[in-house]
Amino acid sequence: MSLHPSGSTSGQEAAAVSALPALRVAVLGAGTVGGEVLRLIAQQGEDLAHRIGGRLEVRGVAVRDLDRDRGPHVPRALLTEDAAALVREADLVVEVMGGIEPARTLLLDAMAHGASVVTANKALLAQDGATLYEAADAHGVDLYFEAAVAGAIPLVRPVRESLAGDRIQRVLGIVNGTTNYILDAMTRTGVSFDEALTTAQQLGYAEADPTADVEGHDAAAKASILASLAFHSRVRLGDVHCEGITQVSAQDIAAAARMGRTIKLLSIVERIEEENGERISARVYPALVPDHHPLAAVSEAYNAVFIEAEAAGSLMFYGQGAGGSPTASAVLGDVVSAARSRVHGGIGPRESRYAELESIPLEELRSAFYISLTVEDRPGVLAEIAGTFSGYGISISTIHQELLPPEEGSGAPARAHIGVSTHRALESAMTASLDVFSSTATVRSIDSVLRIEGE
Amino acid sequence: MSLHPSGSTSGQEAAAVSALPALRVAVLGAGTVGGEVLRLIAQQGEDLAHRIGGRLEVRGVAVRDLDRDRGPHVPRALLTEDAAALVREADLVVEVMGGIEPARTLLLDAMAHGASVVTANKALLAQDGATLYEAADAHGVDLYFEAAVAGAIPLVRPVRESLAGDRIQRVLGIVNGTTNYILDAMTRTGVSFDEALTTAQQLGYAEADPTADVEGHDAAAKASILASLAFHSRVRLGDVHCEGITQVSAQDIAAAARMGRTIKLLSIVERIEEENGERISARVYPALVPDHHPLAAVSEAYNAVFIEAEAAGSLMFYGQGAGGSPTASAVLGDVVSAARSRVHGGIGPRESRYAELESIPLEELRSAFYISLTVEDRPGVLAEIAGTFSGYGISISTIHQELLPPEEGSGAPARAHIGVSTHRALESAMTASLDVFSSTATVRSIDSVLRIEGE
Repeated sequence: MSLHPSGSTSGQEAAAVSALPALRVAVLGAGTVGGEVLRLIAQQGEDLAHRIGGRLEVRGVAVRDLDRDRGPHVPRALLTEDAAALVREADLVVEVMGGIEPARTLLLDAMAHGASVVTANKALLAQDGATLYEAADAHGVDLYFEAAVAGAIPLVRPVRESLAGDRIQRVLGIVNGTTNYILDAMTRTGVSFDEALTTAQQLGYAEADPTADVEGHDAAAKASILASLAFHSRVRLGDVHCEGITQVSAQDIAAAARMGRTIKLLSIVERIEEENGERISARVYPALVPDHHPLAAVSEAYNAVFIEAEAAGSLMFYGQGAGGSPTASAVLGDVVSAARSRVHGGIGPRESRYAELESIPLEELRSAFYISLTVEDRPGVLAEIAGTFSGYGISISTIHQELLPPEEGSGAPARAHIGVSTHRALESAMTASLDVFSSTATVRSIDSVLRIEGE
Repeated sequence: MSLHPSGSTSGQEAAAVSALPALRVAVLGAGTVGGEVLRLIAQQGEDLAHRIGGRLEVRGVAVRDLDRDRGPHVPRALLTEDAAALVREADLVVEVMGGIEPARTLLLDAMAHGASVVTANKALLAQDGATLYEAADAHGVDLYFEAAVAGAIPLVRPVRESLAGDRIQRVLGIVNGTTNYILDAMTRTGVSFDEALTTAQQLGYAEADPTADVEGHDAAAKASILASLAFHSRVRLGDVHCEGITQVSAQDIAAAARMGRTIKLLSIVERIEEENGERISARVYPALVPDHHPLAAVSEAYNAVFIEAEAAGSLMFYGQGAGGSPTASAVLGDVVSAARSRVHGGIGPRESRYAELESIPLEELRSAFYISLTVEDRPGVLAEIAGTFSGYGISISTIHQELLPPEEGSGAPARAHIGVSTHRALESAMTASLDVFSSTATVRSIDSVLRIEGE
């Protein structure tokens, strides 16, 4: 029984669905995400048809190896090695293969032949988004990419549509699950970066070649996408300052804990208002956040992002930032939008870059820092360090000194560890101070330089 | 200097903007939200024009009293008492007046005359959304209402667009800031409901007539909107089970705290899978959530909502759920979308109710409960209560008994307070047990019945 007199039986429903126009879908890639996309289309086909007003017909799935078994949701009959031919006969192309080429060429070709594109390819968007946008414009097709940033968490659509009437000041968050998993494991268990990485690889949270994640490149690609959308400007990957987490030590994690802070890899994009206009900053680095900050509580491979906008205030989004199912959810949301445009007319959001804001170089930014040094344990060393900071206009907020065990068999003087937290200071002033320490005899090593955020 | 060679000077920008097509905007209501909408349009007009590809021209602001001063952002020259004439000459109508009539008639008239509508009116949508949707369909115009649910938090767009390819199982959250402010104050300071309400009224968090908030009607309207979107079915206000917070006592708050729980007014909409199909539930009630649950930490007038979907997993959204600026941010996001449809063609999301799922009556649901009773302190009373629950198939998880001070000057037997937490049980079984207690001589009063969620 239906609540509504107009309710139809499921037989009628099926009939109604088969009468809907068909949309030819090409899927590029049949990995974890591709397999889930195909599963969802198969299992929810009728629902999707109702929501779209059209039927999704998967015409082919392009792969590199036809013979590999890809599970029950990737029918062998749909597999093809000829991606180029596939995309030319499609209304919608779903790109979940990753990498720059051949993805780029295929998507441009697809758009030239009139297909709308849904992609999860953050690297391609960050490196060459402009070309994709321009092709979409030139051919009057849609380009959607919710899955490229923070997996299932709706972030692209909120930034470019929900907040389109507002003025976004800052987007700050954890957008890479692998590095969060590693840092969280280091924090919980005290292991080193290498040990945590090995565990993450064993559990499938990190890839065999973890470079893109641990060096921050993946987070930087997402920052460039978010900055472009939030500030209506083209922000290229090269505009994003990027530091990874390979230098974060167990000692850094422990020192952070002593200060009531947690180390997280943050992506930060912000609008910086200046006397004669405004510029923007996009950056990725491991930072200390206070334990009471919601980002400190984000565990395992989860993602969480804060958006600060003038009228909306502070918004937080939280969820699974990676994985086959969550990413496929985001892809399919875009597929429904692109398909609806096809059936009902109209165009999706285009590139918006009218503001053309410049990026501010990192050295002109102001940040709070935590610096860890190994020094000779002599009178006057602390005063010398404080004096150097002071000379560059850097104000110290806390300082922590600890005598280290003597080096074995050496007649060298005793050493101490010094941890310094500063108030916000110019990056260039910090660089200059560190240069001085590098050539100061009593400073044996600069062990770490981390920024402090969220205070 | 611009990053891009195509960068234009602001003079050229202004020229380009003035060449864009104009969209006639009618604003209904000039209260806190209306004033902020007008301020944002005035201050960000050029940005909005770039984002839309068209200029927003506010043609009039309908108010009931022309003479009231409404601050600098509501130009007197735009005020009119003739809302009916205003909406007939508009491309976009922004309705922020609230209430059922005359809002309903005006919006229907606006759509009949070809205007797209952006409204923040949750009560109207919950009561008569179907009529509005049908009018939008009939006249080929858009109906947007992000601001109707959880203020600035993007929730409507994520549910109906980002998650359109997924299967939403449950939406659970705090969507009424007033009641959260009151419950949070009661939790923090131990004051009674009445005291907390008075403070909330003094600080502007509660209205002079707080009925819609404290009785749960506002949260129920939002639940009906969310359920309709999430489950592609028409869920009317009458389908939402609604309990407010007026019966929540300082004793309940204290008892919850002893158990490591916090009382929150929750809106819950969920899909319930059954042997022969599925039904949905939409309900609003104060519930105990574990202190470690993120919802327990939502303080003051903030809103937070969890969405659980099959592929996306669990997502959380957090932010300001009310207030002039946040609500205006959501309104303007919708204005940009509706305006873009106007300029570029196409239609926004329509009503999606193909699933036509029935609502499950509350008594058929299963919930965990906390029940507080005042009983005579006699041997066997506890066994009697436990026996009654057991007879109805209700399994007790914890029980707490406390001797109460004797009633003054009475020869009545000593009394005790009993707090019982149960495992999940049928609502109808709980109702039957409570009926038994009502006619049990040793049970002096049933002091509270609250559900437990989020465990």
